[in-house]
Amino acid sequence: MIVPRLIERKRNGGHLEPAEIRELVMEFSEGSVPDYQMAAFLMAVYYRGLDRAEMNALMESMLESGKRLDFSRLSKPRVDKHSTGGVGDKTSLILAPLIASLGVAVPMMSGRGLGHTGGTLDKLESIPGFRTSLSLAEIARQIESIGCAMIGQTEEIVPADRKLYALRDATATVEAIPLIASSIMSKKIAESLTGLVLDIKRGSGSFMPELDQELALARAMIDLGAAHDCPVVALLTAMDRPLGFACGNALEVAESIDVLKGQGPADLAEVTAALGTEMLLLAGIAKSPAEARAMMIDSMTSGRALAKFREIVRAQGGDDTVIDKPQRLPQAPHMAYYVAPISGIVQRIDPREIGYGVIALGGGRRNMEDSIDPAVGYVITAKPGDRVSKGDALATIHARSESDLELGESILQEAISIGEETPSSLPLVSHRVTERGVEPLL
Amino acid sequence: MIVPRLIERKRNGGHLEPAEIRELVMEFSEGSVPDYQMAAFLMAVYYRGLDRAEMNALMESMLESGKRLDFSRLSKPRVDKHSTGGVGDKTSLILAPLIASLGVAVPMMSGRGLGHTGGTLDKLESIPGFRTSLSLAEIARQIESIGCAMIGQTEEIVPADRKLYALRDATATVEAIPLIASSIMSKKIAESLTGLVLDIKRGSGSFMPELDQELALARAMIDLGAAHDCPVVALLTAMDRPLGFACGNALEVAESIDVLKGQGPADLAEVTAALGTEMLLLAGIAKSPAEARAMMIDSMTSGRALAKFREIVRAQGGDDTVIDKPQRLPQAPHMAYYVAPISGIVQRIDPREIGYGVIALGGGRRNMEDSIDPAVGYVITAKPGDRVSKGDALATIHARSESDLELGESILQEAISIGEETPSSLPLVSHRVTERGVEPLL
Repeated sequence: MIVPRLIERKRNGGHLEPAEIRELVMEFSEGSVPDYQMAAFLMAVYYRGLDRAEMNALMESMLESGKRLDFSRLSKPRVDKHSTGGVGDKTSLILAPLIASLGVAVPMMSGRGLGHTGGTLDKLESIPGFRTSLSLAEIARQIESIGCAMIGQTEEIVPADRKLYALRDATATVEAIPLIASSIMSKKIAESLTGLVLDIKRGSGSFMPELDQELALARAMIDLGAAHDCPVVALLTAMDRPLGFACGNALEVAESIDVLKGQGPADLAEVTAALGTEMLLLAGIAKSPAEARAMMIDSMTSGRALAKFREIVRAQGGDDTVIDKPQRLPQAPHMAYYVAPISGIVQRIDPREIGYGVIALGGGRRNMEDSIDPAVGYVITAKPGDRVSKGDALATIHARSESDLELGESILQEAISIGEETPSSLPLVSHRVTERGVEPLL
Repeated sequence: MIVPRLIERKRNGGHLEPAEIRELVMEFSEGSVPDYQMAAFLMAVYYRGLDRAEMNALMESMLESGKRLDFSRLSKPRVDKHSTGGVGDKTSLILAPLIASLGVAVPMMSGRGLGHTGGTLDKLESIPGFRTSLSLAEIARQIESIGCAMIGQTEEIVPADRKLYALRDATATVEAIPLIASSIMSKKIAESLTGLVLDIKRGSGSFMPELDQELALARAMIDLGAAHDCPVVALLTAMDRPLGFACGNALEVAESIDVLKGQGPADLAEVTAALGTEMLLLAGIAKSPAEARAMMIDSMTSGRALAKFREIVRAQGGDDTVIDKPQRLPQAPHMAYYVAPISGIVQRIDPREIGYGVIALGGGRRNMEDSIDPAVGYVITAKPGDRVSKGDALATIHARSESDLELGESILQEAISIGEETPSSLPLVSHRVTERGVEPLL
């Protein structure tokens, strides 16, 4: 293998054989192909793409670099949900216990905040004592015993992906569909899933704001799953405004507990129900969307969903008293209302401004080394299209200091615009993508 | 400076400020920007290009990484010639002494063979004792005393370019016009030239076979020169067949000596005269092309050109007896004629086949560590369009062994095709490009 020749071929738009991709990734993973050659290759892939066979070879060689979860002793269906990332998106926290409470194994492997978006691990860690890094053996045991684990990527799974991702992050080659798709799917296939639901975010708060790009990403992941006995269904959901009210780690855990009780913001409950429906259908537990929705409502109103969450929190070392007394979650010492500066219709609540605004209060990382304050953030109860009067409370700000309250206020002033027009927002769930194609749900 | 942000901006087709390019190159040169980030940047530049200001900043930061030749005590004009590389192209060997003999300082900095093309340094080193690596101080002294030095790139000049070039070579990012142009021009500006003539090769034996690419490269170098008081004139010359007869290091030195005596192949003499004319015009030594040509002929027929070559060879430690007795140059132990296998018209003499065919005989490098045999090669006296009869000698093969003679024969059989059509060849010199634009010379 002459690496510059491989790079050149991809650079010129040519095809690489699966064996060539494998050798490249394996040797990169072992350190015999240097980072600078892989960086040039990745940038060529950014422009030229990978065809289906190349992408599959990339994913398989990442899979082969590590271990997989072994569920050979488990007869249950195993379904996970993955989101491309958003603001206020706490559906993972709700779906893991909810779907596990209905007899589906949910090995939910999540990430940390990235850019303006929040991360499930950061949110979970606002529960005192909650451990998100378990060994592969611990994960398998916990899933066998209680049907769910909510964890970060372990060092044992797809180490080549971790090395490749760090390089992509440092070389502006993250935003390439075949690289995103093979990275996500390598982790999901390593979980030995029998089905996967993708939540692909649309709109200004998503990483990939163009619809055709999002559909291409869905298609790529569906193809990779199909090649590995893991059917994938993708829903395209709105991220042109935050999802639910709470944006900030502990605040989002509290809101998730509300939803698990059958309460909480309507938009969050609806997106959660849509994703949960697909999980139950893929698992073969429900026969129709109506049946799936009924099962979920029953689990929430009967308390079984919340009981499963309690089991998970306990199993992973967390303080489960927060479930009954959410005020035992970390609380910010300073709080203030944000009120409408004028009367009118809420035009826009910019999810990027809000996401970066959580980071500005200390609730997210600027660098990988930063520690985060789980208590801070915003609870924004207004939604685009709401008619408000000057002085109405639109949100609460939770901050570490008086001056951070002022900072939060100026951030909300930027993020929330009020005017006289009726704004057009994206539908909460706009498309459903399966192996058979794209169904608009408008 | 956040490097991934800079890479991302270029990746998306944006503009970088000159100060940003400077910082990037400086920190790369010092090792604080890692190779993998520069590799990703270079690949983005491959696709997105650099605008004039970016390219100039890249060149200037490479210049600033090292020293320049100091000719403040020299009142003479200083002109160099640079070729994009060809097969049988020995015009540098002829032009350096010829133009220096006419009162122009010629600090000729050359390279080694690359790909299928020969390198002036390799050719010069076939003269026993000839040293091509001089210090900057030695170069300046020699140019002050005899008006010419024929040298390789020193470690003192543009070290950032050397580091960048090695990275480009390993990452398939060599063939990008702004990178080629700024690399070449950084070395030429470091020579403190008052003018530069570019020989841009066209046709199947050139590195960049498309005319619009070649014109863009010429334009880029002209722009860079104009910004640094170094007017540049480019000629586009034919490389769809080898130039002259000899292909191989010592064989080309012998042929160059013929031309310096006013003899040698007509095509080589013509391209040399065209390039030399531009050098003399840029230097202000000749007032018209006709005057320039007359001056060159006079220098050759009077023996002054050859005497200047003798001075250079002596000054650089070479055995100058080879000039009167070319048979003292390294001689291959085995020689054979290659004869026409059929009667007809020579259709094509493929320069890449011939170039790689010299390497196959041991006359060039496969890896940077290879040593080369200066004696081997081909002297191909046939030209496309010649009518030949079966059995006519078309070439001589100079080889290290009987089996290499057979190898050489099979290479020539591939490279030289004979048929019945009248072939169309590129004109020897087809375009002249200056700051004012492109003049076709057809």
